[in-house]
Formats: sequence, structure tokens, C-alpha cells
Amino acid sequence: MAEVKLFGFWGSPYSRRVEMALKLKGVEYEYVEEDLNNKSPQLLQYNPVHKKVPVLLHNGKPIVESLVILEYIDETWGDGPSILPKDPHLRAVARFWAKFLDEKCLPACSKAYLSAGEEQLKAKEEAEELLKVLDNEVKGKKLFGGDSIGLVDIAANFVAYWPVIIAETLGVELITKDKFPNLCAWMDEYVNSNFFKEHLPDRDKLAAHIRTWFQKTSQVKR
Amino acid sequence: MAEVKLFGFWGSPYSRRVEMALKLKGVEYEYVEEDLNNKSPQLLQYNPVHKKVPVLLHNGKPIVESLVILEYIDETWGDGPSILPKDPHLRAVARFWAKFLDEKCLPACSKAYLSAGEEQLKAKEEAEELLKVLDNEVKGKKLFGGDSIGLVDIAANFVAYWPVIIAETLGVELITKDKFPNLCAWMDEYVNSNFFKEHLPDRDKLAAHIRTWFQKTSQVKR
Repeated sequence: MAEVKLFGFWGSPYSRRVEMALKLKGVEYEYVEEDLNNKSPQLLQYNPVHKKVPVLLHNGKPIVESLVILEYIDETWGDGPSILPKDPHLRAVARFWAKFLDEKCLPACSKAYLSAGEEQLKAKEEAEELLKVLDNEVKGKKLFGGDSIGLVDIAANFVAYWPVIIAETLGVELITKDKFPNLCAWMDEYVNSNFFKEHLPDRDKLAAHIRTWFQKTSQVKR
Repeated sequence: MAEVKLFGFWGSPYSRRVEMALKLKGVEYEYVEEDLNNKSPQLLQYNPVHKKVPVLLHNGKPIVESLVILEYIDETWGDGPSILPKDPHLRAVARFWAKFLDEKCLPACSKAYLSAGEEQLKAKEEAEELLKVLDNEVKGKKLFGGDSIGLVDIAANFVAYWPVIIAETLGVELITKDKFPNLCAWMDEYVNSNFFKEHLPDRDKLAAHIRTWFQKTSQVKR
């Protein structure tokens, strides 16, 4: 058995987080692509509670939940760039924003994308309120982590890359330069960074995946 | 300015988590009770995003989100018992369960308490599914943290104490011995532990608070 194994799905921003963290640290690992419509017995065995990717297996022990895995990777492989800052207060700030992304932004953006009509207008407004907070946080900074890649940048991959492709694919624009100048500057920095662009999914493949996902999940046909 | 200041609310399980962690570590702090109907300018200043308790202020810097605060306390005050285990895998396991409590159990239990009729039956079933997972996790253990108090025990205060009082106050029983024997054994251990019983809210005061909260929030009058 390989020492480090990642059960993931290429189109999942959560899986990509873990890939990014492993690559950043220079950890060698075996990648197992999961078919989400027919999950492997291993995935179900290693993540019996949520039955979801990503799962990191290290020396036979599973670690699940992408943010938990990122902290594990940072603690286990001390060499290489730090994912979390060393200072306890800055660590708390990074954890705060990662939580904010997952618990506030991601659900709000999904709702804005998947709803329609009046409900969508309301959902977009709510998502924009949260994105404004994020826009303000990255103001004057190259990355959320300052000059180097950190927990929040890795966690925010779905903000950096997915919305542009969703806008092109589904015609729903959420993050625009006029409303979110700082976030858009960060998105440019992100998708043009040598590190990130190597670990983001292929554009056309993701567009096709988003189209299928949308048709399955949304209340409305576009 | 006191070096460590906690802005909290006596009836909030999230605030109680932070109090428990500070007491466990033997950290001296000033406690500022917030009126949630009329929040202090300091609370709004220190937690502008969520505008919620608890907020920990340490040397003038705010830390928010109770689980983030618990990690901060553990990292900042190394002396005294550890809140998270030292081993990275066990740390990941503890973080997983703390997340499970906040993101799955707490919303499901709230829904089960606050809904009515058919919707409540369904919500109770869903909450019970999650509580079964928790019941299984604590099986054969004195505490979630093993023999000593850990992150999950502190985070789970709302499971240990609130449901019994809600059952008495509102007549909605969720955690019963026949369905959740391990969880109930842990709850007994919890409320009889010298440490925890000192840091849980007064029974009668909490019952009155729950009654008011329920009348404000629920769809149904009881």
C-alpha cells in the first residue's frame, strides 16, 4: 500500500484543495479518481459518515473533510512552505476565513447559481453581501496569505476559478470587476500563478461538467 | 485593558465552550456579558462579520468563532491540559467530530426542536440518524477525549446538557437511553463531572431562557 493515497474527484474544489496542499508540500502520493455515481468500497469504508471525497489515507489511516486534511498535511509534513501561519493569531484569522468560505460563501453562491426568478435575485444579493466581505479582506494584498500561498487561498479555489466558467457556461454572472475589484484582481493573480494553474481542472472539461451538474441539480433549465 | 477578555452570553453553548477552555487551561480573563438584544459597540467592532458571541480579545486582538478560539487557546497557552491531542491523526479526528457537531448535529437538533407535525417527525428522524453516529463514536469511552476532557467534549456541551432541559421544558424528547445508551452514559458522566458542572448554566435559568427562545423562534406554540 502506498504511504499516502488521495481518493478524489477531478471536478471537486474540495479534492483540489488537498492536491494543492500535497503539491505545495512536495508530498508524493497516489491519486485514486472516484466515480461519484458509483463510489468505491474503499471510499465508503474510509469515510462512512459523509461518504464523500476527498479522503486522505496516510499509513492506512483515513483523514476526511478537506479543511481538516489541510491542517493534517501542514502538521505532518513540516518541510516546505507552511499552509497555516506560525503565529497563533494569524492562524486563527486564516481558520476564520476558511470557515467563512465553506459555511457562508459556498452555500450562498450555490444557491445563487441554482435558483431562478425572484428567489435567484434574493440569493444573488445575499451572496454578494458575503463576497463584499471577502473582497474587502483581500484588498491591497496579492493573496489572502499575503505574498505566499496560504490556507485561505487553497480553500478559496472555488471562488478563484469556478465562477468565471459558470458565467461562461450558464450565463449567471456573480463576481464582476465593477462590484468586486479586489476579488477579481486576486482571481487574475490566482489563475495566472504557475502553482495554481497547474492544479486547477481543465477549462473545457469543467464547463461540460458544470453543465451536467446544473441540469441535474437546478430548479430551472437553461 | 485586561490581557484576556471574553465577550459572551451565559446561555450560549458557544460561549460556554470558550469559558470551559480558558478554565481548563487556568487562564485568567475578564468576562463581559453581552445583551444579545442590544449588543455592545465592542462586540460589533471585534466581530463585524458575524456580530456574534463569543469573541476572545487577547492583547487587543479579537479571535472569533468558538472552534477557532478553542484552537487558539490551546496553541497560545501551552501549559495545562491539552485541548487537542498532540498526534496529528488524533487531532484530525477531534477536528472532524467538532465539525460534525456544529455542521450536522446542531442544525438537525434545532430543526427537530423548532418544527412541528409531520415536519418535526422527519426532522427528528434526521437528527436521530446523526446522534446514532455520535452514540457509536463514544461507545466504550468515558469521554470523547478518552479519559480526559478534549475538544469534542467541550464542543459537545450542547448535546450533554441542553436536551435534558429542553425535554423537561418543552416536552420534546430527542436523546433517550433506549435509543442512545452510550451518549446517555456520556451525558451522565458530563453533568456529574466536577469540571463541567461548574461551567454549565444554571438549570432553572436555562429552562426559562429556552422557553422564551422557543416562543420567539418556533413555528408552533407549546
